[in-house]
Formats: sequence, C-alpha cells, structure tokens
Amino acid sequence: MILLDGKKTAADIKEEIALEVNELKNKGGKIPHLAAVILGDNGASITYVNAKVKACERVGFGSTLIRLSENTSEEALLNEIAILNADPEIDGFIVQLPLPKHIDDQKILMAVAPEKDVDGFHPTNVGKMALNLPTFISATPFGILELLDRYNVETSGKHVVVLGRSHIVGSPMSILLSQKRKVGNATVTMCHSRTKNLKEITLQADIVIAAIGIPEFLKADMVKDNVTVIDVGITRLVDASKKSGFRLVGDVAFEEVAKKSEFITPVPGGVGPMTIAMLLKNTLLACQRNS
Amino acid sequence: MILLDGKKTAADIKEEIALEVNELKNKGGKIPHLAAVILGDNGASITYVNAKVKACERVGFGSTLIRLSENTSEEALLNEIAILNADPEIDGFIVQLPLPKHIDDQKILMAVAPEKDVDGFHPTNVGKMALNLPTFISATPFGILELLDRYNVETSGKHVVVLGRSHIVGSPMSILLSQKRKVGNATVTMCHSRTKNLKEITLQADIVIAAIGIPEFLKADMVKDNVTVIDVGITRLVDASKKSGFRLVGDVAFEEVAKKSEFITPVPGGVGPMTIAMLLKNTLLACQRNS
Repeated sequence: MILLDGKKTAADIKEEIALEVNELKNKGGKIPHLAAVILGDNGASITYVNAKVKACERVGFGSTLIRLSENTSEEALLNEIAILNADPEIDGFIVQLPLPKHIDDQKILMAVAPEKDVDGFHPTNVGKMALNLPTFISATPFGILELLDRYNVETSGKHVVVLGRSHIVGSPMSILLSQKRKVGNATVTMCHSRTKNLKEITLQADIVIAAIGIPEFLKADMVKDNVTVIDVGITRLVDASKKSGFRLVGDVAFEEVAKKSEFITPVPGGVGPMTIAMLLKNTLLACQRNS
Repeated sequence: MILLDGKKTAADIKEEIALEVNELKNKGGKIPHLAAVILGDNGASITYVNAKVKACERVGFGSTLIRLSENTSEEALLNEIAILNADPEIDGFIVQLPLPKHIDDQKILMAVAPEKDVDGFHPTNVGKMALNLPTFISATPFGILELLDRYNVETSGKHVVVLGRSHIVGSPMSILLSQKRKVGNATVTMCHSRTKNLKEITLQADIVIAAIGIPEFLKADMVKDNVTVIDVGITRLVDASKKSGFRLVGDVAFEEVAKKSEFITPVPGGVGPMTIAMLLKNTLLACQRNS
C-alpha cells in the first residue's frame, strides 16, 4: 500500500511555484497576485481564506484580502468584482463561499471575468473543462489529477467509479478522467444517491473516488484487491479520546480499505492540502496567460 | 419491442411549436426567428441547412439564410456574427459546421452570443449544461432526452452505458443522464476507444447509447434482455440491392439487437429527425427568454 501524500505533494508544488516566482522576479516579470473577497465573520471561512492569503505570501505572490460586512448588498459586491476584473495588477481572484442568503451565488460567480476565475467556477470555465480546452480546473479536481499524476497512477483503460455527483468534485472528476488527456482515458462510472447495487459497481473499480460526505461509507468488502482510493470526504466526528475532542474522517473506512489498496489518500493529509496548492497554480497560470 | 419513433415524435414537436407560434401571432408577440450562416458549397451542409430553414418556415418562424463564399475571411465571418448578435429580430443563429480550414472553429463558436447560441456549442452554454442551469442543450442530446421522456423510458436508478465520448453526443449525454433531472438520475458509465472489457460493461446496461460511428458495432450478444438502445450512429454503406446504391446503418446491429430490446431507435428515423425539431425548440426558448 502506497499512501498518496497530499501534504508532501502540496509542499513540493508550492516549492516549485516559489522557484518560478523567483525566476519571474529576476527577469523583472509580473509577479502573480491573488485577491480574495470574503463577506461576514464565519470562522471557518475566515480561517480558510487566511490560509490562502498566507500561502500566497509564502510562494512570493502578491495577495489582497478584501473583507466586507455580512450586510454588503449584492450590488456593492458586484461593484467590487467589477473593480477586480478591471485591475491589471490582480491576475486572479476568488469570492469565498458560502455567501450570505440575500446574495445570489450564481449571479456573483457569473460576474467574475473568466480569465481571472482561478476557482474555475464560472460556467465558461466549466464548459471549457468539459470541452477539454485550456481553462482553470477547480482546485479539488485539479488536485486529484495532480496527485494521480505525480504518483504515476495509471488511469488509461482503468475503470474509475466516482461516488457523488457534486458540481465541485464528482461531476468534474467523471468528466475529466474520461477525457483524452494524460491523467484520463479511463472508463468512468458516475454513481450517486439513486444508484442501485452500488457494491456490485464499486467491486469492479480499479480506482474509486469517494466524494459523498458520508463518513467511512466505503468499506473493505466494497472494493477489490489492489484498488486505488481517492477520499475527498472530510467530516468531524466527536472523539473524547482526542485532545481536540474530535477526529477527522473521510468517506472511506481507511484502516480496512487501506489493506486492500495499491494507492490510497489519507484523511487528513490527502486531497485537502492539494486544493490551496492548485489555487496557487491557477493564479500562476492566470498571470502567465495575461502577460 | 417498442420502436422509439423519432420521425413521428419530431413531427409532434413541430406541430406543438407551430401551435405556440400561432398563439404568439394572435397575441401580437415576437415571432421566433432563426438565422443560419453557411460558408461555401458543400452539398451535404447545404442540404442540411436548407432543411433547417424549411423547418422554420413550416412552423411559422422567421428565418434568414446567410450564404457566404468559401473564401470568406475569419474577420468577415466574425463581423457577420457581431451583426447577428446585435440584431434584435434574430433570436438565435447557427454557424453551419464544418468551416473551411483557414477559419478557427473554436474562435467562431466563442463569438456567438451565448443567449443566441441555439446550437448550444458555446463553452458558457456547455458549462451551464454541466452545472444543470438553464441553457441551450445541443440538438442531439436534447433530442435523445426528449425521445426518452415522451416514451416514458425510466432512467432513474438505471445503468446507462454511453459508447463514445464526443463533445457533440457522448460526453453531454453522460453528464445529463447522471444529473438530478426528470430524464436523468441514472448511473452512467462512459466508454470509449480505451475501454477494456467493453462487452462486460454493455451487458450490465439497462440503457445503451451508441455514438461511436462504427456501423453495426453493438451486437445482440453485448446486451441483456429488455435493454433500451439509442442509436446515434449513421453511416452510408454501399448496397447494390438498393435503388440509391447505398443504405444507412447505425452503430447497432438493429435486427438482432431489436429482438432483445424493450425500446430501440431505428436508423434512419430515430435520433436523426429529432435534431431539427430540438433546434426549433431552442429557438422558441431563445425568443421567450429574450422577450
């Protein structure tokens, strides 16, 4: 069993990006600059957005954090986005989700200029992804592709079973892995809550991508020997034996499934840490494309 | 065995559209207007585009056919598109493919205003399709959904196997049928040239969608009893016994597969006739959305 170490891989990627930024500096080129917009005081969102800003600083990117009140009107937010769209210093920016209820998420995502949409959430970028055209692939799917690539996990001709059809992970993964691309060319089965005989299907999988948000859903008796497992789930379970009072678990019963796996991602430390690294990668790409 | 009669269904849809146009006329509303742009003298393309224009006339739509020389520059074509984008009389328009080699298809498709892109080829519309947002679903996938719907073919929880990953048919079908929608909620396996053990997979299918362009590829021994088969292929085979000197065959060995099928589309007369009907439907939608 080989652990797909997202923490280490993300650190490698950040190091590579830092080297590229250094080179850009030496050449007098434009340094990538990411902006993040956040509304309100949700603790988890602030922690996450701060981690993104800090990651920018560590690799040498410019970064701007725009904190707006929870009560910001949709119009004011659209205006902020228009300013970022027009600012040549800003290569890419994100609007941290979730947004307050009085704001229409979709309207906001549509307002971000596709060439600065480093989250890859704009329909134009999703469409380009589906058409296998150059775009920004959103951070989690992009991170999974990168992990599979760096560990040389063969996907061509393999049977991939994706669990969960979310627009953020399951659906793009099923699209990407079936495409003609380096990490791709797989036969992909997309499963979800309406799927019948799920176990029959997962037992056929060479690679399982679990993204349903049900803790320890995938058990050892649902996979064949030498399976590769990508666990996208992350749930906090109360655990009195831990100092913190909780533990993080994925969608995979790790201990038992790991025994049957050729490759498997841990939780935490698997797919999670890859996302910020891929956001940085997209920002670097945006800077290169715009210059 | 029940034949999924595309010819009849398409005629029904056109009749319904004609009734809606009549109502619009009576109310003094805007009548839908489709424009088609075609470059050069390719016989098949002209036949096809003429059929679209004629279909418009029959249902009472306005229509405009813009025939340009094979030698039209990319710039001139982009200019023509800009005029159509700006013309409030035109609700939707299509640029007939293939385009001459000196023109970049993707650049042209990107230039069509998404709200007039009734072919549904613009990345923004493909992205909205992938995100299950209101959009124009392109004619062939839209026609297949409509056929399944009108014959009440159950898709929810069924195992759909899609053969062929083209951007025009296979890929959007796999996306659409796995979504939470009336004709959807299926477990979908996307197969293509790199798929191994294909027969093992098709034998599990409740519904097969064959879109690979290999005549009579799907044989009876590859499907289970009571399968539903959608045949998107259409190939001309030389046949001296026919007056025309050829016959049209699909991707399915119809005679033998039909015997095992619950529902099956014939070729010709199945998916084919649905495409123009769905183009008209998209044009009607465009007109309703713009007014």
